[in-house]
Amino acid sequence: VSDPVRGGDQAAATLAEAPDFDSYPVLHAIKDASPFPGGVRVLWDDGLECRYHVFWLRENAPDPQTMHPVTREQALQLLDLPDDLEAVAAGTDAAGNLVVGWSTGDESRYHPGWLYAHSHGAGGHFSLPPRKLWDAALQEDLPRFHGPTVLQDESAFTDWAEALHIHGLAILEDLPRTPDVIEYVPARLGPLRTSNFGRVFDVRSRPDADSNAYTDLALPLHCDLTTREYQPGLQFLHCLENESTGGDSFLADGFHIARHLSETAPELFAALTRIPVCFANKARETDHRWEAPMIRLDEDGECEEVRWSPWLRAPVVLSFEETALLYRALRAAFAAAEDPHHRIKVRLRPGELLGFDNRRILHGRSGFNTSSGARWLRGCSVEREELVSRLRIIERSKRGHDTATAGNAD
Amino acid sequence: VSDPVRGGDQAAATLAEAPDFDSYPVLHAIKDASPFPGGVRVLWDDGLECRYHVFWLRENAPDPQTMHPVTREQALQLLDLPDDLEAVAAGTDAAGNLVVGWSTGDESRYHPGWLYAHSHGAGGHFSLPPRKLWDAALQEDLPRFHGPTVLQDESAFTDWAEALHIHGLAILEDLPRTPDVIEYVPARLGPLRTSNFGRVFDVRSRPDADSNAYTDLALPLHCDLTTREYQPGLQFLHCLENESTGGDSFLADGFHIARHLSETAPELFAALTRIPVCFANKARETDHRWEAPMIRLDEDGECEEVRWSPWLRAPVVLSFEETALLYRALRAAFAAAEDPHHRIKVRLRPGELLGFDNRRILHGRSGFNTSSGARWLRGCSVEREELVSRLRIIERSKRGHDTATAGNAD
Repeated sequence: VSDPVRGGDQAAATLAEAPDFDSYPVLHAIKDASPFPGGVRVLWDDGLECRYHVFWLRENAPDPQTMHPVTREQALQLLDLPDDLEAVAAGTDAAGNLVVGWSTGDESRYHPGWLYAHSHGAGGHFSLPPRKLWDAALQEDLPRFHGPTVLQDESAFTDWAEALHIHGLAILEDLPRTPDVIEYVPARLGPLRTSNFGRVFDVRSRPDADSNAYTDLALPLHCDLTTREYQPGLQFLHCLENESTGGDSFLADGFHIARHLSETAPELFAALTRIPVCFANKARETDHRWEAPMIRLDEDGECEEVRWSPWLRAPVVLSFEETALLYRALRAAFAAAEDPHHRIKVRLRPGELLGFDNRRILHGRSGFNTSSGARWLRGCSVEREELVSRLRIIERSKRGHDTATAGNAD
Repeated sequence: VSDPVRGGDQAAATLAEAPDFDSYPVLHAIKDASPFPGGVRVLWDDGLECRYHVFWLRENAPDPQTMHPVTREQALQLLDLPDDLEAVAAGTDAAGNLVVGWSTGDESRYHPGWLYAHSHGAGGHFSLPPRKLWDAALQEDLPRFHGPTVLQDESAFTDWAEALHIHGLAILEDLPRTPDVIEYVPARLGPLRTSNFGRVFDVRSRPDADSNAYTDLALPLHCDLTTREYQPGLQFLHCLENESTGGDSFLADGFHIARHLSETAPELFAALTRIPVCFANKARETDHRWEAPMIRLDEDGECEEVRWSPWLRAPVVLSFEETALLYRALRAAFAAAEDPHHRIKVRLRPGELLGFDNRRILHGRSGFNTSSGARWLRGCSVEREELVSRLRIIERSKRGHDTATAGNAD
């Protein structure tokens, strides 16, 4: 320890609070800490050397004047700090916390597990399990779960939630055949998203259809509400009746199709990541449109979202050459999705709840004949980020157990 | 007319349907039309020469086999068309429609007003009124409207909706002081967006606060739900009680602040458009985070969105140099927002409903003292795109009247 710190080594023999609700195992100890103009330099026992910025450290201090103890939101505002704030002393205490003395006379203590986890170069604290892209082979291996168990058992719930992320879809079986299932099961992941079709929508053939979904038409593979800036994330469809001839559901992994295109027709794939398509919903009382390329990649070039609509596109207004390229790409993409090598067929049975990531998984159906029997699905949406939040909480709770063990071992 | 067309000029003496619900004035006539491989070439009477792609034309034909007559969504799917589709004839009929004969034996007719409006090089059909950025001078000129009139009168409603877009905020006065106002007034623009704080939220000081908003703390200027991928668009706050000392509302135009920064500190402005900030909501049961730069520009370099949160930021994990740059930029931005030259102060009176664009306008409040009197606001959100849809419908209805007049004049 290079500098004496006010309060001294003896003042705190316990680990500092983490400034959030998470648990942080103490994986590494601080070997040395010293202030420098603008920050504090810390050397960890694995050789990692970090420079922490004064404002970064100061505003993330876990004391109750800085972090509101109930909300765990910042109570001290960044602008409350002086422009010339400096660390005047840095060291560790007996518990291994980083202790920083400030030019303002204050002192802050930092949990070493929290500090290491938030260090540049230390790797992240949490990451989602990687997605598994799929093709027609998933038909034999559909993620299916026993609905009543998922609702009662935490570990079964975790399996279901993880499948929704990893495969982008999952089916719950043996749920009640009552109209309220669509309200209370998806709500376990987060609040339902309301759209102009309502909080919950009924997919049945209707004479006054304001969407092709409410006719008996076949629907090619597509995403829902492509016409919105923010497409609904998770979509759920609960089957109440499915006695009609036809009306099978088809599903395909849009991210797999995108990858397939990138390998077989890179110039068409590139066009779909670049050329904005105008998705539009023509209606009497509303006029929703959103213009975006059909495939959106993240910084690493991985698929983040597809916006896939064979029949809800407004006329594009592009040069002839761009139009020609876009139509070649659209036709190749739609054809790849309908290719039996890529899609699966699911006939939902009454009591089954299908959930899928509407920004990744394409869904469609064969046409059906209402005179042959009834078909009634009830649907709703929950945002994808509610699932991600849930997966983080699951991970946090696992880490809480690990930390407790690690604490004993220390 | 360069080619004879099956059906001939006499077959249709009326204008073709438009394939959507909009009205299209016939501003220009077709002077010449001819097929070429892959498309149809049209010469308009103002000299505009357009090449329309075969798939573009074919899938936008207004006949009921192509466009479902009830939903106005495509009933013919792009993949139903043969790869080698060609136009074999093109011309006009007596009403001035473009008539195209197809290699499949079909024939399509296109309304000339619709066709011109969707032509590359013809300019757009609809654009939103330009935004007016504002500073403290708006204090004297706040967009205020008489609430009961807005709810009854179409033209007053239009003024209110346009103000919400142009200035990004508007106040309705003299509404009832009842808790249900927040349900039915904003719903006139579109469905309410539910979040983890509920469909409608009550802003009052609470002992079990899960957000600083529910304490009596002062809140610096900020946007709400910056931790979500898609920040709520329009936010509404209805004042039921405001008797406490303090509790004034502050508002600033985030787009104006961004422009101010771009002029006074371009390198800090650039940092805020580039460096991702992790916005995070620390809670016991949820863990919502979104990483994005604080200022998002559109293709033209204009502000599209600010994500502004002085106190809901997770520790960034960046190099020391990037961290230092980001903190300089954050402090400059937050200070500019709190500068009295940029912000306005509004003391909401009971019965007033403040609406603002939460992705543009920053809001905050002074601290208040609950022992001096009650303060109770009720809030909700409606997406920005619902307002845009409404503005398009208003524009469409205006155009309908114009078209009717133009029709008479023809």
